[in-house]
Amino acid sequence: MIAQARAGECIQALSAILDRNALLTGADIPARNTADTSFLPPVRPLAVARPDTPQGVADVLRICAAHDVPVVPQGGLTGLAGGAHPIEGAVALSLERLQGIEEIDAAAATMTVRAGTPLEVIQKAADEAGFFIPLDLGARGSCAIGGNLGTNAGGNRVIRYGMAREMVLGIEVALADGTLMTSLNKMIKNNAGFDLKQLFIGSEGTLGVITRTVLRLHPQPGCTMAALCGVDDYGSVVKLLNGARRGLGPLLSAFEVMWPDYWHAATVRVPGIRRPVEGDHAFYVLVEAQGLDEQVDGGRFQSWLESQFEAGLIADAAISQSKADTLAFWRTRDAAGEFQTVLGAHCAFDIGLPVDAMDDFAKACRSRLEVEVPGCLSVYYGHIGDGNLHIVALVEGAATQPAADINRIVYETVRAFGGTVSAEHGIGTVKKPYLPYSRSAEELALMATIKKALDPKNILNPGKVIDLDVEAAS
Amino acid sequence: MIAQARAGECIQALSAILDRNALLTGADIPARNTADTSFLPPVRPLAVARPDTPQGVADVLRICAAHDVPVVPQGGLTGLAGGAHPIEGAVALSLERLQGIEEIDAAAATMTVRAGTPLEVIQKAADEAGFFIPLDLGARGSCAIGGNLGTNAGGNRVIRYGMAREMVLGIEVALADGTLMTSLNKMIKNNAGFDLKQLFIGSEGTLGVITRTVLRLHPQPGCTMAALCGVDDYGSVVKLLNGARRGLGPLLSAFEVMWPDYWHAATVRVPGIRRPVEGDHAFYVLVEAQGLDEQVDGGRFQSWLESQFEAGLIADAAISQSKADTLAFWRTRDAAGEFQTVLGAHCAFDIGLPVDAMDDFAKACRSRLEVEVPGCLSVYYGHIGDGNLHIVALVEGAATQPAADINRIVYETVRAFGGTVSAEHGIGTVKKPYLPYSRSAEELALMATIKKALDPKNILNPGKVIDLDVEAAS
Repeated sequence: MIAQARAGECIQALSAILDRNALLTGADIPARNTADTSFLPPVRPLAVARPDTPQGVADVLRICAAHDVPVVPQGGLTGLAGGAHPIEGAVALSLERLQGIEEIDAAAATMTVRAGTPLEVIQKAADEAGFFIPLDLGARGSCAIGGNLGTNAGGNRVIRYGMAREMVLGIEVALADGTLMTSLNKMIKNNAGFDLKQLFIGSEGTLGVITRTVLRLHPQPGCTMAALCGVDDYGSVVKLLNGARRGLGPLLSAFEVMWPDYWHAATVRVPGIRRPVEGDHAFYVLVEAQGLDEQVDGGRFQSWLESQFEAGLIADAAISQSKADTLAFWRTRDAAGEFQTVLGAHCAFDIGLPVDAMDDFAKACRSRLEVEVPGCLSVYYGHIGDGNLHIVALVEGAATQPAADINRIVYETVRAFGGTVSAEHGIGTVKKPYLPYSRSAEELALMATIKKALDPKNILNPGKVIDLDVEAAS
Repeated sequence: MIAQARAGECIQALSAILDRNALLTGADIPARNTADTSFLPPVRPLAVARPDTPQGVADVLRICAAHDVPVVPQGGLTGLAGGAHPIEGAVALSLERLQGIEEIDAAAATMTVRAGTPLEVIQKAADEAGFFIPLDLGARGSCAIGGNLGTNAGGNRVIRYGMAREMVLGIEVALADGTLMTSLNKMIKNNAGFDLKQLFIGSEGTLGVITRTVLRLHPQPGCTMAALCGVDDYGSVVKLLNGARRGLGPLLSAFEVMWPDYWHAATVRVPGIRRPVEGDHAFYVLVEAQGLDEQVDGGRFQSWLESQFEAGLIADAAISQSKADTLAFWRTRDAAGEFQTVLGAHCAFDIGLPVDAMDDFAKACRSRLEVEVPGCLSVYYGHIGDGNLHIVALVEGAATQPAADINRIVYETVRAFGGTVSAEHGIGTVKKPYLPYSRSAEELALMATIKKALDPKNILNPGKVIDLDVEAAS
């Protein structure tokens, strides 16, 4: 039983602490804050609150909680799963004015930033200070670090640097009752009680609102080597992955695999994409390593590639001779970003699977889609080294995509193969119906226990990620 | 208000599901299970339950919870903070019979193990399968992986591989009510809801009992390079650390700093320790890197060291020419293990500090100890690259060590410098009084909220890590 929200009083109380620029209502609510990137229909929130201090964020939560008004935290609004999508009757709590880098500590190799700061600003500041922020994704220019942590963002370099979670040393969070919990730790080792930050990273704003964070800085890579390989069977792909892990060790920064259906769509259907290797192969693998210096590690990369060729794992390969080459290799992988334009409306998936099951999964999924959804094209590609597979599926030229059928078939196949319905994008509302495909009744019940403990009034992003009356899917 | 424990009925119910070897009571309770390595006086538990299946562990918890009997989880009993120390009237739930490696998945680079398995067994199995488990600590032969995760163990290679937390992909936990939550994920990327395993790693058995885990395997390092450097001031130590981060990148595997008082104790007082560098220096730094092959990375290490010498950061250095050299370098650091014998009873600390504050901290702490505890010797050394400082402090020859005063002074100085009272050993009972020195009232309150939500009857390791009626230390 949820208490009756007292919206009017809540807005009044908020207006007493927020100036005109920090509280937008009615016609002043910007279109920007009515949707994220999940393609759900826009929703006008009750109001947009955009405080510019951590304490301001906490105060908004305190007032909303006191009036039983739910809150939807918003960062850069680039999420694909609906985590930041507004809810009717809820205040959109936007971090867009809580921006800026507070400190770079060169000795500790840390950066303290406010949650609304765009990722690209953070990357550039690290670069200027002689450091490197490994987190990188397509939305870098508009996504905010708070949202990156709230969704535990992944990206291309997870195989080397881990997910966003691994880059965080400290955090500050506004809790559901308006408490501001400051835990801006800079130390790599800190076992003083429970590691509270872990709760908030990846919880998509359902347990608290991140206001500041301390990020771990890495040294800048000295050089980047890349190769695009044609490989003849999936067994060889797995052997090549293990060969890369051994031969390139911690230098290995990406291992991207593209299935032939993807390769065709990316290099034939998308205009202007060069094919680094010619001929037909069962798999196309982009291997990237970041070295310390070109002279030592460039030679090492070439020798490693030759050894894999001699071992019969690679049928054909192009090795990058320049930054332009490396960019051209990545364009075959990034061409997926053009599918919306070239192929039209489609269903996109971000699933995870045990590495050795991936090709069997792709075969099974493709075959079910072809049989059960006449005319369905599905293409497969992903960060295989991290267990992450992307799928784009559609019926070309269909007036409306049979999204319900495609979703059901893909997620049922994920469940059958013991995979995860979300590797990196999160659950939000879009994938919530499928969460029980990847999590047991016991896991879902524990998530609900945590949610109820941290947000007993269910005002933080209610209805996102999990439902509070959890039942196992059978 | 805690319900009255019904001990007799509980033992009776346990004996109905555990055979004679799995439930020990009265005189059959082994001395081993009456203490961990915290030097607290032995306590005889109500009984020792040692089931040999995950479901058995969950069943013991269910029965104990039903009878309001508290439980103390026990692994290898090598913890230094009292986390596994028995409590009077509680059942000691030992994982010692839940041993074994269930699977090594070469494609996913994962190993699935039971919680009672000793770390060394896991290291050897990884090695035989051509992989590497980076977690390593002195107690490797007797500590159990479940305890390593329960305390989020650190060790020497955290700068490169992270804490135990970073090595875990999946976990199975018996919850306080006897639910067995199996979450044996093998994928590096999995954002399907809250990352529940993070709650249990480092919570010292207060939120659940880890029964199995999936560990991430790493490639074996191809070669190890090491140098022992004399450095003349702390500013140069920090510059050398940053130089190592840049010049050795992800190969850097250890950066250990020893203050002169430590160096004297380790190389003069402890017999048989060779001094790799002669002369008096303000700091002694052991730098280690793990490379892919000797030929390429050995030369790289030597060039890097020369560049640091030319930059004036190093006054004198010895570079390892053999495994025996590397071992000899590490002996100066591992000599701390002999202090108990050579210096006698002492207080040992495992604190963390921001890197740039470490030397100021050491000066302040040493000075306060000298003034306020007449005759007090304190020596400083640690994993500086990780923000971790160890201290050994004592009054030599004292009949009884003034431990209360030494503890108070050290932890007050930690608080003044914004450090942590435990970098890697955990809180247990030994450091519980000092937890508020490193955690705010808001952080402690949230820990209590989580504890109450996951263990409402307070039967899991009660009184460890946090008190449930939390008040901030002022």
